[in-house]
Amino acid sequence: MTQPPHSSQDSLLPRDRLLQLGAKPLGSAVTFADQVFALAQRVPLLADFSVEEIQTLTSYMEAFHAPSGCMFIEEGALDDYMVLIIRGTVEVVKLDNWGHRSRVAIVTPVQTLGEMSMVDGEPRFASCIAMEECHFGVLSRSKLLQLIDQQPQVGAKLLLRLVQLLSSRLRQTSAKLMAYMSQQTPSASR
Amino acid sequence: MTQPPHSSQDSLLPRDRLLQLGAKPLGSAVTFADQVFALAQRVPLLADFSVEEIQTLTSYMEAFHAPSGCMFIEEGALDDYMVLIIRGTVEVVKLDNWGHRSRVAIVTPVQTLGEMSMVDGEPRFASCIAMEECHFGVLSRSKLLQLIDQQPQVGAKLLLRLVQLLSSRLRQTSAKLMAYMSQQTPSASR
Repeated sequence: MTQPPHSSQDSLLPRDRLLQLGAKPLGSAVTFADQVFALAQRVPLLADFSVEEIQTLTSYMEAFHAPSGCMFIEEGALDDYMVLIIRGTVEVVKLDNWGHRSRVAIVTPVQTLGEMSMVDGEPRFASCIAMEECHFGVLSRSKLLQLIDQQPQVGAKLLLRLVQLLSSRLRQTSAKLMAYMSQQTPSASR
Repeated sequence: MTQPPHSSQDSLLPRDRLLQLGAKPLGSAVTFADQVFALAQRVPLLADFSVEEIQTLTSYMEAFHAPSGCMFIEEGALDDYMVLIIRGTVEVVKLDNWGHRSRVAIVTPVQTLGEMSMVDGEPRFASCIAMEECHFGVLSRSKLLQLIDQQPQVGAKLLLRLVQLLSSRLRQTSAKLMAYMSQQTPSASR
């Protein structure tokens, strides 16, 4: 996998990075496997995972607690983990050209966040802030590679769903872009 | 995997669909494995595949010849194959709001086309037209699922690269969209 550019920040392990951001570790996310499975039908990513597959997947994740207001993913940061929301509601925000935060999405259990940086190591596109006390599982890039290597069936299933998720988002974003392009010319400043 | 909506068109196998569009079958794409491997460094999707992995991948693909001018992927169509360009240059075009075709990209060996519909079964986003005689390999959704099942290491590697490819495109498209959206006033952009 392509390595991200190095900075002082990306030398931190996901766990240390999350502690720095104010989250607290809760041990292996496998503890929450039943809870995740109970909600899995809600999200396309996990909708057809069996309880055993959810157990396998969560056994590669560490769980964290974030207090209300905790920004556990920071726009522009170079870290490489995906987050699976287990409890609580999360706001996704992005800085606009005027330096104002604008809301991009509201995310609830058991949706995921941060898949892109997990796979491509590029800076975070937006920030994620706990709107109330949250529990979430963290899958780092190195754990994803371990999962693919050690449990290829579950790894391939997760990857296939990620391809579908990104494909769906790309279609939606492209359609919005086409709508704007048909009305306007792009800003010269970007 | 989610099934696409049914129509008379999507009951055709990829092979029959391609014959209908004017392409001619050339047998298994494994014949072209060395040729693909020789160019694989050019494209992120295949850059670190070994010659054995390219042989495995191409053994799940059927090769086709398209004459100059052949539209072998048609915007809006419901088919579920990805194309790997082996020889020749391909124009990607999309209809705009006024019904004019505008060029989206030029694709050369050994780039891929049509990954999104392969995984999500949604209508083709754009059309692909051979600008000269072309050879290409076709990976259908059913063959992708066979590959994942029978050769999980190669399947997972391909999927991981597809996730990275779509992630990169999504970042680029989102950045363009943000540039257009930034022309709105702050009050309107929420």
